[in-house]
Amino acid sequence: MDKKYMELALELALKGKGKVNPNPLVGAVVVKDDKIIGQGYHKFFGGPHAEVYALDEAGENAQGATLYVTLEPCSHFGKTPPCVEKIKKMKIKKCVVACLDPNPLVAGRGIKILKEAGIEVEVGLCREKALEVNKVFFKYIQDKKPFLFLKCAITLDGKIATSFGDSKWITNENSREKVQHLRNDYMGIMIGVNTLLKDNPRLTARIENGRNPFRIVVDPHFKIPVDSNFANFDDNKSIIVTSENILKDIELSEKYKKFIDKGIRFIFLAGEDFKIDEILDKIGELKIDSVLLEGGSYLISKAFKEDRIDGGEIFIAPKILGGGLSFIDGFNFKEIKNCFHLENVKYNIINDNISVEFFKNINLKVGD
Amino acid sequence: MDKKYMELALELALKGKGKVNPNPLVGAVVVKDDKIIGQGYHKFFGGPHAEVYALDEAGENAQGATLYVTLEPCSHFGKTPPCVEKIKKMKIKKCVVACLDPNPLVAGRGIKILKEAGIEVEVGLCREKALEVNKVFFKYIQDKKPFLFLKCAITLDGKIATSFGDSKWITNENSREKVQHLRNDYMGIMIGVNTLLKDNPRLTARIENGRNPFRIVVDPHFKIPVDSNFANFDDNKSIIVTSENILKDIELSEKYKKFIDKGIRFIFLAGEDFKIDEILDKIGELKIDSVLLEGGSYLISKAFKEDRIDGGEIFIAPKILGGGLSFIDGFNFKEIKNCFHLENVKYNIINDNISVEFFKNINLKVGD
Repeated sequence: MDKKYMELALELALKGKGKVNPNPLVGAVVVKDDKIIGQGYHKFFGGPHAEVYALDEAGENAQGATLYVTLEPCSHFGKTPPCVEKIKKMKIKKCVVACLDPNPLVAGRGIKILKEAGIEVEVGLCREKALEVNKVFFKYIQDKKPFLFLKCAITLDGKIATSFGDSKWITNENSREKVQHLRNDYMGIMIGVNTLLKDNPRLTARIENGRNPFRIVVDPHFKIPVDSNFANFDDNKSIIVTSENILKDIELSEKYKKFIDKGIRFIFLAGEDFKIDEILDKIGELKIDSVLLEGGSYLISKAFKEDRIDGGEIFIAPKILGGGLSFIDGFNFKEIKNCFHLENVKYNIINDNISVEFFKNINLKVGD
Repeated sequence: MDKKYMELALELALKGKGKVNPNPLVGAVVVKDDKIIGQGYHKFFGGPHAEVYALDEAGENAQGATLYVTLEPCSHFGKTPPCVEKIKKMKIKKCVVACLDPNPLVAGRGIKILKEAGIEVEVGLCREKALEVNKVFFKYIQDKKPFLFLKCAITLDGKIATSFGDSKWITNENSREKVQHLRNDYMGIMIGVNTLLKDNPRLTARIENGRNPFRIVVDPHFKIPVDSNFANFDDNKSIIVTSENILKDIELSEKYKKFIDKGIRFIFLAGEDFKIDEILDKIGELKIDSVLLEGGSYLISKAFKEDRIDGGEIFIAPKILGGGLSFIDGFNFKEIKNCFHLENVKYNIINDNISVEFFKNINLKVGD
C-alpha cells in the first residue's frame, strides 16, 4: 500500500517542473487509516515546501498519520522554516522518505532529528524514480554544473537541415509543441552562433503561463548581429559566451558596449575553442541549474565528445534527406560496440513522429 | 456484426504469409445465426482455397449461411476448381467480399456468377485492410514487378556501419530475430555485392519451419567469390545479377561456368550501371513476387531515387556513430518539403530499439 502513496507524491512533485529551479521538485502525501488526508508539492522557487501544504491540509488530523515525502525533509532555516519542526509539531507518527538530501552537509540530518523525536522513519521507497524526478537538482548540487539536456529534430537519416540550410519543418506540429514545454522546463537554452545566424530564433517558451528560459549563445568570434532577436529582449536573460580576446579589438569592443547597454550578459573564456565543460561551469555560477541544448551540430558533437550530455529528447520524422547536415559529426569509431550508447531510453510516439528520451544513469555520491 | 467476421477472415489470411506466394493471402469465415460454423485460409501455394476449408468445415450446415471472404472468389479452373461453384453447391445465402480480384480479366466475374445464382453479394467491407494484407499480390499482378521491401538496421544518426565496415551489431537480438521472419515472408532477398564481400551472409530465414528466400546479389562486375556462402547452396535459389559484358572476358567466363555448375542462376543486363527497375522486371519474370532489400547503401539509395521502394521496416538502435556509412546517401535536396516522406508509418517498440514500418499507398487500377 505504501508504494502507491509515494507514487502519488512523485506525481505531485512533477507539477512544479519549470517553476522551482534551482530548488528540488518535492511532493508530499499525508495518509491516515489508508485515507489521503493531505497532499502538496513545491510550487514555486522560494515558496512553501511540499510538506507544509500537505500537513496544513491534514490539519489536526495529521496527528498519528504517515507522511510520504519524495525528498528528505529539510532541517535548516532557508527561505522557509525547517520542515522537520513542522512534522514534529503536527505529531506525525511515521515518515516515509524516497531519498536523502544530496547535499553532503545536511544529508541524513533531517532523518536523525525525526528519529530522535520518536518518529518512525523509513528511507528508500521508490528511490530510483525519485532520483529520476530530481535528476536536474541532484546533478547541479553535486557537480555545480547545469544538467545538459539535448533536444533535436532529425530525419530518419539523422539530418537537421538540408545542405542549403533549410530545416523548416522536419518534425510535425505536436513534436514542435512539445519543444515549447521543454523550453519551459529547463532554466537555460543554449545554441551555437551559426544556428542563431541562420534562424534568428526567439528561443521563447510559447505556452500558456510559460516562463522564458535564459538564452545562451556560444559565439567565440562575437558574430551575433546587434539587431538579432536574441539581443532584443529587456529581461536580462540573454547571455553571450565569447572569447576574452574580442575586447582587444576596437571594433568589437564598441559592439560589446552596445550589447551591454541592451542588458545582455557576457561570459568570457580564454581562446576560441571552448570546452563545453568550461561553458557549463560558468553557467552554473549564474545559478542556472539546467540547460536545453538546441544545436547545432558543432555544439552537439562537442558535448558528446566531452561526455557532457546528461539526457535528451531526439524527435524523429519519417523523412529521408540522403545528404545535408547531420546532428552529430566528426567521429570515426572503429567498432559499433565503442560508439555512443544512450541510456535509460524511452520512446514516445507523436502521430507520425517519434521521440527518443534518454538520461544518463545518476551517480549519486551521498544518501546511498 | 459483419465487420468482426471480416476482420477474423483477414487475420486468418495472414497466417499464410510466406507460404502462398505468388498467390494471394485469403481468409474465409462461414457464419449462421451469428455463429461461426466454418473458417479457413489459403495455407500453401497451389493448395485449396480459403473458401474450401471454411465451407467443408461448415458442411451441410452451410446451407443458408453467410460467407465472409477477403478476396473475390475465383471463377476459373486454376490449380483447383472454381470456388464460386462450390459456394453455389453448398447453398450459401449471402457472400460478403472485401475486395475484387485485381486481375482485370477476371475482376467482377466471380461476383457476377454468384449473383446470377441468386446469392446476395456485398463488396467492399474492410476493403482498405484487405488491400494492405495483399499489397504484395496486388503489386505483382498489376505491375509484374516484385514488391520491394526495404529492411535496414541503423543508428540514431542513420548509419549502417562504421567507416571500418563494422556493423555487428547495431540492433538488439529481438530486432534481429524479427528480420528472420521478414526473410520468411518475402520470396526473395536482395543485396549489393559490397555487402556480400564484407559480410559473406547466408541470407537464410533462421526460424522454425521457415523456408529460405531466393538470394539475389547485384554484382555488375562479377566480383563474388566462388567460395562465398551465397554460391554454396544446393537449392537453385541463388541468383546473380550481372553485366552481359562479363562473358566477353575469358577469365570471367571461366568463373561463370563454375557458378553454373553449382546451380547458380544469372540475370544478365546491359552495361554496368543497372536501374533497380530493370532488375525488378527480370526478377518478376522468375515469378518472384516480393523482394526484401537488405542493402547496402548503394542499392538503397538507387531504389529511393527511382521511387521503387514499396514498403519497409527500418530498425533503429539508440546508438550514435557520428560518422561512418549512411544507409542512404548522394542526395542534395534544397528544401525539407521535397525530401522523401515515408507513407503509412507505424512504429514498433522492440525493447530499447524501435522499428519504423511504412508502405506506399496502393494505387489499385481495378475493382474500385
